[in-house]
Amino acid sequence: MPAELVSEKLEKQSKKKSKPEAVQAPAVTKIVSAESAPQPAVRHASVQKTQKERASRAKTPVRIIPLGGLGEIGKNMTVIECANDMFIIDCGLAFPDAEMLGVDLVIPDFTYVERNAERLRGIVLTHGHEDHIGGLAYLLKKVNIPVYGTRLTLALVEAKLKEHQLNGKVNLNIVEPRKTIRMGCMAVELIHVNHSIPDAVGLAIHTPAGVLVHTGDFKVDYSPIDGGIIDLGRFGELGSRGVLALMADSTNAERPGYTPTERKVGESFDKLFAAAEGKRIIIATFSSNIHRIQQIIDCAENNGRKVAVFGRSMVNVITIARELGYLDVMDGTIIDIDLMNRYSADQIVLITTGSQGEPMSALTRMAMGDHKKVNITPQDFIIISATPIPGNEKYVTRVVNELMKSGAHVVYERMYEVHVSGHACQEELKLMLALTKPKYFIPVHGEYKHLKKHAELALETGMQRDHILIGQIGDIIETNGIDMKITGQAPAGRVLVDGLGVGDVGSIVLRDRKHLAQDGLIIIVLGINRSDNEIVSGPELISRGFVYVRESEELMEEARNRLNDALDRCSAHELRDWNALKGRMRDVLSDYIFETTKRSPMILPIIMEV
Amino acid sequence: MPAELVSEKLEKQSKKKSKPEAVQAPAVTKIVSAESAPQPAVRHASVQKTQKERASRAKTPVRIIPLGGLGEIGKNMTVIECANDMFIIDCGLAFPDAEMLGVDLVIPDFTYVERNAERLRGIVLTHGHEDHIGGLAYLLKKVNIPVYGTRLTLALVEAKLKEHQLNGKVNLNIVEPRKTIRMGCMAVELIHVNHSIPDAVGLAIHTPAGVLVHTGDFKVDYSPIDGGIIDLGRFGELGSRGVLALMADSTNAERPGYTPTERKVGESFDKLFAAAEGKRIIIATFSSNIHRIQQIIDCAENNGRKVAVFGRSMVNVITIARELGYLDVMDGTIIDIDLMNRYSADQIVLITTGSQGEPMSALTRMAMGDHKKVNITPQDFIIISATPIPGNEKYVTRVVNELMKSGAHVVYERMYEVHVSGHACQEELKLMLALTKPKYFIPVHGEYKHLKKHAELALETGMQRDHILIGQIGDIIETNGIDMKITGQAPAGRVLVDGLGVGDVGSIVLRDRKHLAQDGLIIIVLGINRSDNEIVSGPELISRGFVYVRESEELMEEARNRLNDALDRCSAHELRDWNALKGRMRDVLSDYIFETTKRSPMILPIIMEV
Repeated sequence: MPAELVSEKLEKQSKKKSKPEAVQAPAVTKIVSAESAPQPAVRHASVQKTQKERASRAKTPVRIIPLGGLGEIGKNMTVIECANDMFIIDCGLAFPDAEMLGVDLVIPDFTYVERNAERLRGIVLTHGHEDHIGGLAYLLKKVNIPVYGTRLTLALVEAKLKEHQLNGKVNLNIVEPRKTIRMGCMAVELIHVNHSIPDAVGLAIHTPAGVLVHTGDFKVDYSPIDGGIIDLGRFGELGSRGVLALMADSTNAERPGYTPTERKVGESFDKLFAAAEGKRIIIATFSSNIHRIQQIIDCAENNGRKVAVFGRSMVNVITIARELGYLDVMDGTIIDIDLMNRYSADQIVLITTGSQGEPMSALTRMAMGDHKKVNITPQDFIIISATPIPGNEKYVTRVVNELMKSGAHVVYERMYEVHVSGHACQEELKLMLALTKPKYFIPVHGEYKHLKKHAELALETGMQRDHILIGQIGDIIETNGIDMKITGQAPAGRVLVDGLGVGDVGSIVLRDRKHLAQDGLIIIVLGINRSDNEIVSGPELISRGFVYVRESEELMEEARNRLNDALDRCSAHELRDWNALKGRMRDVLSDYIFETTKRSPMILPIIMEV
Repeated sequence: MPAELVSEKLEKQSKKKSKPEAVQAPAVTKIVSAESAPQPAVRHASVQKTQKERASRAKTPVRIIPLGGLGEIGKNMTVIECANDMFIIDCGLAFPDAEMLGVDLVIPDFTYVERNAERLRGIVLTHGHEDHIGGLAYLLKKVNIPVYGTRLTLALVEAKLKEHQLNGKVNLNIVEPRKTIRMGCMAVELIHVNHSIPDAVGLAIHTPAGVLVHTGDFKVDYSPIDGGIIDLGRFGELGSRGVLALMADSTNAERPGYTPTERKVGESFDKLFAAAEGKRIIIATFSSNIHRIQQIIDCAENNGRKVAVFGRSMVNVITIARELGYLDVMDGTIIDIDLMNRYSADQIVLITTGSQGEPMSALTRMAMGDHKKVNITPQDFIIISATPIPGNEKYVTRVVNELMKSGAHVVYERMYEVHVSGHACQEELKLMLALTKPKYFIPVHGEYKHLKKHAELALETGMQRDHILIGQIGDIIETNGIDMKITGQAPAGRVLVDGLGVGDVGSIVLRDRKHLAQDGLIIIVLGINRSDNEIVSGPELISRGFVYVRESEELMEEARNRLNDALDRCSAHELRDWNALKGRMRDVLSDYIFETTKRSPMILPIIMEV
């Protein structure tokens, strides 16, 4: 169908009061019977009309609502809506900041999509990383919508759904690159990109207002390990036909130049395997980096070494990747870890999790001497094939120190090129802008500084300043093909997950945790006889996390004296107002403690009625 | 006096039962009347004797006892002792790890020097950074010994002593480079080095057993801003006469090549001042980096800009440095911050603290819109002239994001060369090894990985593996000029300072703080009548930092029910054993809470006797 007809058809649909599509919900994944990619609605580059004429050509507006991933790293999630249809791109998690004490993970606020559940046509996933799929199970518990993605992505999703007892309850649809998913009046086309996980895609979203391109996470690798070079041709084709708006990955917008090819790491492995002659090799990397794992396996096979796999997620991902054919491994290369002892040190490679120094990971346990199967010795040659994610530097350093103390040789510095990024650097970002030639540009995936840098790059490529929009989560960004602006705000923010609790830890709980963490607490227990308002027991002081009590008896004794003095001065009338009494005890104690120790523990007065 | 005679004299002294030197204690600092540098005891390089002959030449042993700075960053402190004399090199602080909740700073364990107080002849400071002088006030409260250092170092120490109400109570002695301090049977010579603070020195310690060289923190700057090139000649002279052992700064042992000259930063400032034309310039850097501040002032003067200074420590250090002549500023360049409004944006430069994103610093407050005098706008050009210290990355990033959101231009990336390190890289470390040609080598100042790399560099320069010692704090490293070995352990570790408390926060308190930070706490209050063992009130539940109680009423209600059920099942006999009763309540509640929420708050049962 020619481009104009498709777009007209799309527009007509959008004018009908569209009803939710009847979605099948098979328990197993299925291949979507995809139609060929529709063409863009209008070619803006050639449109040269007056303001009035332009206005008359305004289309049904499309709205872009980022719910995560702007002004932050992680929990990527974007809503696209047009007329009565809405779909979601990705639903990731973020890891908690240092201030979010006790929090396990952070997910987006789903209020907006819950409120619009009847308009939701589905969710498209760009790839299988946690910051793109880690919030999905929580979302599906609220709105069980069809899920679309590539084969590996959905296999990783399935594993996560099992953990949440959602397996078999979700409509999972495998879609191949260059194929299209219909979302009411919109259609979403998947475009192959390079990234640090196979089967990653960007998206072309064909809407009545025009084509939106979302890159997902991407880099340009001209010699990828598998899956082919990023589909630059399709991005270019879309660009030359007219892209209304581009949303592109800003993670590496601060880095000049190009991200090296993944193959570079393989070359480093070749050299390091030679240098490790006679020693056992242990390599820690991200379990999802299947191309990295492929290169380790290739290197092992070329050097006549067997491979043993450590760490739950590493075992899971390698199992899935082998089943689906994403890993090419000779029979007998991967051995059971219990058979390791049959081989000498120079016949073996261990692949493990823990490249970020995570406290419970296999590598950390090996480093600390806590691992049941692996004992680190000077016969070990260890490669940490990753760069610490900001915030993890100290954890990684600790692991490196401990491994070295056991006499192992540890390769961890940048200079050995044992890691390359999965994200595009500045020259690649400019390439994407040049290919897609968008009318409007919205940098996504990054903190403000990344988005800002990306916006500056777009200016360098010749974009107009007022065609670039640095958004925030919750912004309702609307374009009718003629202009683009923020027209409102959707509820957006972060929802904290702690254990099984989703959203029950908020600012008050965190404030209390912070207070307790800082200086501990002191509890004052007092028993009062309600009938005559007489103190019948206490005040007793109980402290935790404040001082080592056995060595601070004097301090606590004097604190009790101060409280007793204060209580003695209370009239029977004052002993009746328990709130005032609590306040007074709190003041007396906190004044004394602060003047003596310059600390401010939480003080909890408890009055018990007898 | 020829070298042999000096060393003989030193050795003779060491055999006398030396009594503590009569030290004067003037309230003001004084210049030590220094003798000329003594020469080394023996030239080991030329000694080629049999084992037996060697043993017969064994000297009075000297002991090196690192009490901080090995296997860690910060709290540098080393004890040197020989016969009946002992002195200390540096007494620094370290910043707390993320796990040391609520701790303000960390200092070395002083037990060993306290036990040996009568043998202590003094402390020598290599330079005025916190990790070398930050623990001094705490030490002097325990043992008030004479303090030796260069002029700027002692001026910074004086400022710190004032904060601790120790001013006028300490014997401070200014010593110039190439001058020597007598420490009983030992003599300590100061040697000028380059570093990121002026007036830094390394030490040559002349002992009866031979000469020890301690580099302090150092780099090699062939075009320093002030103070001259590091005294390579003296290090070379010592080396060619024979150095028994070298202790050298390992901070940058992982970095190949050379650390660039400080002047490089000045060149970057020149370019950036040009780029900032028309805008207000704000530069954040370390207050102690006086050469950096000098370059900012020079650049301001060359560009006709005035300078306003922000941040308490920046104001203090600049005041001290100007008074002592370490900063060369034209009259009228530095203006009062209240006069800033008289100048236009392009006539002014702000120098501020906060280059590490410290939450209370001036730059952070400006970024967050909390600063009374400075409002960030698109008319600001901000330079962060520092690299984040590991662990501070996220703080710096947050400040950068906020500054950018206000529209300011922010320069913070490495590529702009707005910061250079103060520590020697690999080629400089090899230079120091080649100059001093030590018989033994002890890498200092660094985590294990740094010490290990430094040891590998020493191997590269041709040192024997068994002449290199990677020590730990507390090791008593002894050498008699013939060999070097660890002969024992001194008490060593970390003492946590929290408010006014020194050492009263230990592992139990930290464990409790961590538990409270993770999941908060629930208090169970129960009143029991002792006479008949009947429950007369409660159980009441009070929680903090666990869940937002108003939204979790059901959970807390059910928890109370479970407790009531358990108490109902208790016999009168069981109600008598309060410890068992507390244990049972704790178990019931924690089981229920964990199964419902997968969290483990601290549970504190309190039974009140009525």
